[in-house]
Amino acid sequence: MSKKEIPEILTIPALQNGYENGSFSPCDVVEAVIGRSAALERKHIFITKPSMELIGPHLAGLPPMDFTKYPLWGIPFAIKDNIDLAGTETTAACPAYAYRPEESATVVKKLLAAGAIPIGKTNLDQFATGLVGTRSPYGEVENAYAPERISGGSSSGSAVSVACGLAAFALGTDTAGPGRVPAMLQALIGWKPALGAWSTKGVVPACASLDCVTVFAHTLGEAEMVDDVARGYDEACRWSRPLVRKAAALPKKILLPADGLRFFGQTAQAMERKWQRAAKRLGTLGIPVETISIDIFERAAKLLYEGAFVAERWADLGSFVEAHPGEIFPVTEKILRSGGQASYTAAKLFDDMHALALYRHRAAELLTDAVLALPTAGGTFTRAEVDDDPVRTNSLMGLYTNHCNLLDLAAVAVPEDAADHEDPFGITLFALHENEHLADGAAQAFLAAEAQAGSAMELSEKEAFA
Amino acid sequence: MSKKEIPEILTIPALQNGYENGSFSPCDVVEAVIGRSAALERKHIFITKPSMELIGPHLAGLPPMDFTKYPLWGIPFAIKDNIDLAGTETTAACPAYAYRPEESATVVKKLLAAGAIPIGKTNLDQFATGLVGTRSPYGEVENAYAPERISGGSSSGSAVSVACGLAAFALGTDTAGPGRVPAMLQALIGWKPALGAWSTKGVVPACASLDCVTVFAHTLGEAEMVDDVARGYDEACRWSRPLVRKAAALPKKILLPADGLRFFGQTAQAMERKWQRAAKRLGTLGIPVETISIDIFERAAKLLYEGAFVAERWADLGSFVEAHPGEIFPVTEKILRSGGQASYTAAKLFDDMHALALYRHRAAELLTDAVLALPTAGGTFTRAEVDDDPVRTNSLMGLYTNHCNLLDLAAVAVPEDAADHEDPFGITLFALHENEHLADGAAQAFLAAEAQAGSAMELSEKEAFA
Repeated sequence: MSKKEIPEILTIPALQNGYENGSFSPCDVVEAVIGRSAALERKHIFITKPSMELIGPHLAGLPPMDFTKYPLWGIPFAIKDNIDLAGTETTAACPAYAYRPEESATVVKKLLAAGAIPIGKTNLDQFATGLVGTRSPYGEVENAYAPERISGGSSSGSAVSVACGLAAFALGTDTAGPGRVPAMLQALIGWKPALGAWSTKGVVPACASLDCVTVFAHTLGEAEMVDDVARGYDEACRWSRPLVRKAAALPKKILLPADGLRFFGQTAQAMERKWQRAAKRLGTLGIPVETISIDIFERAAKLLYEGAFVAERWADLGSFVEAHPGEIFPVTEKILRSGGQASYTAAKLFDDMHALALYRHRAAELLTDAVLALPTAGGTFTRAEVDDDPVRTNSLMGLYTNHCNLLDLAAVAVPEDAADHEDPFGITLFALHENEHLADGAAQAFLAAEAQAGSAMELSEKEAFA
Repeated sequence: MSKKEIPEILTIPALQNGYENGSFSPCDVVEAVIGRSAALERKHIFITKPSMELIGPHLAGLPPMDFTKYPLWGIPFAIKDNIDLAGTETTAACPAYAYRPEESATVVKKLLAAGAIPIGKTNLDQFATGLVGTRSPYGEVENAYAPERISGGSSSGSAVSVACGLAAFALGTDTAGPGRVPAMLQALIGWKPALGAWSTKGVVPACASLDCVTVFAHTLGEAEMVDDVARGYDEACRWSRPLVRKAAALPKKILLPADGLRFFGQTAQAMERKWQRAAKRLGTLGIPVETISIDIFERAAKLLYEGAFVAERWADLGSFVEAHPGEIFPVTEKILRSGGQASYTAAKLFDDMHALALYRHRAAELLTDAVLALPTAGGTFTRAEVDDDPVRTNSLMGLYTNHCNLLDLAAVAVPEDAADHEDPFGITLFALHENEHLADGAAQAFLAAEAQAGSAMELSEKEAFA
């Protein structure tokens, strides 16, 4: 059997189709993945690279093909290296922090039980602290399409692995946006469930109370398939909540920011134009659109890094940082240490929490039966730009993501145009944690309209040339 | 019309009955209350005392009698002086803190709209910080039945006003137990709704995220009547949650502590005996009883005062304390200032919150379809004992109450024997915030069994003497 038959881009339906037809086997796919990964070493996608040594036992352990019993049978997936895979090192992109877990994270266990095949552990901004993908001693993760540009972080390697055809889906984590920003920059779906909907047991904490496990995939349907398997209450996880995902439904309204959006970087103009196109498209879905002030979302976002909340990272990692001088990535250490500053008292944190409670309360009212649409990010940077000014560029990448988990929202990041690999832009649909199905439904409608708009645009371009 | 007809103990049914019969009017009742209150000045129940000046306008504003439209028509109630009544000073038992609100607290507004008549603002442990009722510059609130003993705090005046026939019900607040401990010490019902079920807008914050408004009443039915009026989502309150109280129902099991209960004070032996009687009675309700370790409840309780959570008080009151040297009650100032200590960093608070998340998670599992029964308090003290050792005695009073709001539980405190005014003892039934109806149902069943046991005991005592 020729490996040429294995699709360039790995999707769950294409793989299942190939398996059913007998065109190729999971072993063939894994061999292709190992080969492709070796050819892409310069992109620094992996910390533990795909190898037969790692993957072989999982291939050998596959039960007979049965997509009903094993909905992800033979599907290769990548795991961000702050999520445990039993027997393989977890580093959180810090060699001194590395440990070899005996047990997989709950979410990984569920995926394995559904037949999915882990292919490697992906590179990330150290300790999941960053939105750029360059803050790792394992190398800067190159963007899938434009090597000079950032891939977005911290789940950089995971997003790039999917975009480059090394995995059908990949697990990320998301505290301040890492499940969404890299999705946009690689023109993928970034699916961030509500806090507690997926277990975080076996995940290295960033801000433990705000951490989510997420998935990157090519299509919304694939993200939903993974969600079906990964979701569920976990008795062993203190952050777990019994949140059922209802069938996707349309919200009663879509909220758009009245003004004040900020686009930045060399592609700012293109990004703004694409946002306007996306906003216009949202108006064609048959759902009332309302413009609102996004003031409370911006204020909540600022709390995450300009307030005492950053101390949550210090609470879990401070003693490690203190004990390992010189072994932390410098910009990461600076951010972590900021959480330990004396001015961040418990009383100051309560002040911030009381402010947050107000924003949460207002957000809950605004988002009753509604979803909010924002740019996933307002721009991007080259890796050189980020290296020159690591903190400012990183902050800008989080302008439209940082509020999300603090406000207990679910989010679905979708490409404005999945075929646009030149300047990929995307929007994120936010819903209350109990309304994930509304973000899902709005995302489905937006993507369906994108498909139509795409055909229409081709037509009108043809007409323009006629 | 003679005032003699007005019952010694004011209950909602007795008053409604009197109003319907024409035996007395709300004005007669208020006159009686003013008279009784004057005769009880030594008990230091009020900060703003009942007076025609205060109450007259509310009497004058009463609509025609209609218990359907105004379910609390003509019912006198007292308000803890950390809850706003428009036009009357709120002091929180600190003269320097006093202000005259233009608007009533949301809960007070609802009660007034239902026809209830406010009769005064009650004394409390300053800034609602205490469980004893002696920490006030307005005097130590005497126990309703034993003047040398504490009344319990911080809602001391409210509980005593109900026990002494000055109000049919009274509003308290409850952060660490003040809606329950004074209920036990005055042999009343203490009804503590779930966090956010009643609005806290217009309430002086203690630990804003943990504060509840509560009610003291003679019977569970009366507490439920007040709850029907007071409950409800408040758009203007950031802590408000839309929690509907379902019809009372029996839990699938009752959890009792396996061991380790601590009884204290001069009445320790009597308290322990009464607890055993109560526990035995809980076993007769036809609901399976299970004994559990209460370790996680004890650990959660300790977080409240032995951890960084006390900083929440400092967050809201610190700047006032700093600006008013010498004007705070000394023991209260000491506790408040402990929340500002340098060792309580934001990171330490996150450590505590992560521990709490674990306890909350475990409690949620233990209490699925179940209620937990504990002594409301394990004993009591004389006022002299508290004055001698104010911190230790106060801590002991909170042994079985402090965990409740941190764990997001609802609670109903009920007397073991409502007729026991000598050494009143009580138990509290705890349920998850979404299961208030189970605490309610278990409390109803316990009280019904108490009534039966009471008759049976009278009988067996008679037999013993036969």
